[in-house]
Amino acid sequence: MKGIWFDGGAPSIRDDLENPVPGEDEVLVQVLTAGICSTDLEILKGYMGFTGIPGHEFVGRVVQGPEQWMDRRVVAEINLPCGKCETCRGGMGNHCPVRGVVGIVSRNGAFAEYITVPVSALHPVEDSLSSDAAVFAEPLAAAVQVLHQVQIDASDEVAVLGDGRLGLLSAMVMRTVTPGVVVIGRHSDKLRIAARNQIRTALADEPPEDRSFDVVVDATGCPSGFASAMRLVRPRGTIVLKSTFAADSGIDLAPLVINEITVVGSRCGPFAESLEMLTIGRIDPGELVTARYTLDEGIEALKAAGDGNHIKVLLEP
Amino acid sequence: MKGIWFDGGAPSIRDDLENPVPGEDEVLVQVLTAGICSTDLEILKGYMGFTGIPGHEFVGRVVQGPEQWMDRRVVAEINLPCGKCETCRGGMGNHCPVRGVVGIVSRNGAFAEYITVPVSALHPVEDSLSSDAAVFAEPLAAAVQVLHQVQIDASDEVAVLGDGRLGLLSAMVMRTVTPGVVVIGRHSDKLRIAARNQIRTALADEPPEDRSFDVVVDATGCPSGFASAMRLVRPRGTIVLKSTFAADSGIDLAPLVINEITVVGSRCGPFAESLEMLTIGRIDPGELVTARYTLDEGIEALKAAGDGNHIKVLLEP
Repeated sequence: MKGIWFDGGAPSIRDDLENPVPGEDEVLVQVLTAGICSTDLEILKGYMGFTGIPGHEFVGRVVQGPEQWMDRRVVAEINLPCGKCETCRGGMGNHCPVRGVVGIVSRNGAFAEYITVPVSALHPVEDSLSSDAAVFAEPLAAAVQVLHQVQIDASDEVAVLGDGRLGLLSAMVMRTVTPGVVVIGRHSDKLRIAARNQIRTALADEPPEDRSFDVVVDATGCPSGFASAMRLVRPRGTIVLKSTFAADSGIDLAPLVINEITVVGSRCGPFAESLEMLTIGRIDPGELVTARYTLDEGIEALKAAGDGNHIKVLLEP
Repeated sequence: MKGIWFDGGAPSIRDDLENPVPGEDEVLVQVLTAGICSTDLEILKGYMGFTGIPGHEFVGRVVQGPEQWMDRRVVAEINLPCGKCETCRGGMGNHCPVRGVVGIVSRNGAFAEYITVPVSALHPVEDSLSSDAAVFAEPLAAAVQVLHQVQIDASDEVAVLGDGRLGLLSAMVMRTVTPGVVVIGRHSDKLRIAARNQIRTALADEPPEDRSFDVVVDATGCPSGFASAMRLVRPRGTIVLKSTFAADSGIDLAPLVINEITVVGSRCGPFAESLEMLTIGRIDPGELVTARYTLDEGIEALKAAGDGNHIKVLLEP
């Protein structure tokens, strides 16, 4: 089959990849559309030491597997826990130390014509929900996760740093809880999308007053974001870190102690809740898709996703 | 009067310091005993850019001021908020941006014969409580603060990194909530004090299993402590940072996001609660005093406090 292949060098498009064969309790899924995420770009720089087919945001159709799943459109959890270890038994399967992670750890991903996933990871996509929207289930879940980790009230002032994919989705999610949300970014065109969603915006070089936010979500993807967050958050406020960096970040933590800041690392989130938000239209990610490529154009697609001008780039096999 | 003077160079003992004069709503306090803290040692390296008389842990006797305070033994809050700004009105006086901090910011401290403090900062010391114990009111309050910031239950496993002053006090406080406390340090003699207080101990080069603690309190005072904390804390666990460093700490924050760790910066705490713990004997800091010096021996005292062999060094004018 055709797919994007990465083995530590430059990624390549190959059409001689082995057709995946579903194992026990797995299904074979034909990929309909896949989203390119910052983590994918980090992985192609060596993050996590991954080799294989990258890609973890996707919508597909089940083409082989148990009868009740056949022909259904699905999305899938990316964390595949063992289900047996102490962490899993403690209800934290997303943190299982021996888990596979689709397109990130020990499992081929979705930048290909087909992918196999465990039945236990599947979520059905309702007919009324477009694949263009459903492909946001994974990144939107990551944004929703913030609400499960930090108590945010309608009177809270929240700054979201970064006007990229995750920044805009996070701002949309925060906006469902409080009107006091501002997205701070470097791209007027991306900030305009936030503005059209009733979210205040500010350019990064004209930031709001220091120490004026109850919660700051850092979705910049770069170490300078954390430093900005430290400036913007009020004493005893909360910084939510959504960015994973490949490199050492060299940060002075003294202000964190002096101002008694809480920093919350936040990663993957609840798929079912995210899918519901998309299905009932509480979050409309439509404007976030700024480019579409075929698998044959995959290398071009990866470049576009990293050029700073695009928001969500889709790969459609 | 006599005192320790610091103006950016080497600290000196001077006996020509001006006698402090209490302002309106202030008292003059004769210092009976003062404790040397890691923050003092950092300040003498340039932290906070402080100049003047350092020292913020002390017990004294009021010798000038309102009748009801005269001749009473007292300790005093170190944060002196303006009481008028938005932060103060929001109940966070300890974070007032224009506050003075005794011996740390814009206020002379307690390494001298006399000190002035606002009446509003005073706490009376009961006759039954020795000055040797009462001098721990400030650092013990800082340890108690952790319980106000992090929910710790009787079933929680807590690691305290560092067997110094704040590490041992933090462990004693955590031990009032859960039996699952272990102090990890480099000094067998200091760890023995923890053991005598029914606290488990481990040497830093034989640490417990990675990812096995619900809460890790970093009281090491050095950047390597944070890296150790990141290893020891379980996924979705909490790291409490009690250390302020003078330098950039160069820390990779990616594991914080991947393992969804919460990091809580923690500084000063509630004096009244700390004093009560000392008064009723729930915390007995007696063994922590390992040396006493007069003001004349002040430079020697500062050296002793920083040599790694002592726990709490007292200065007794």
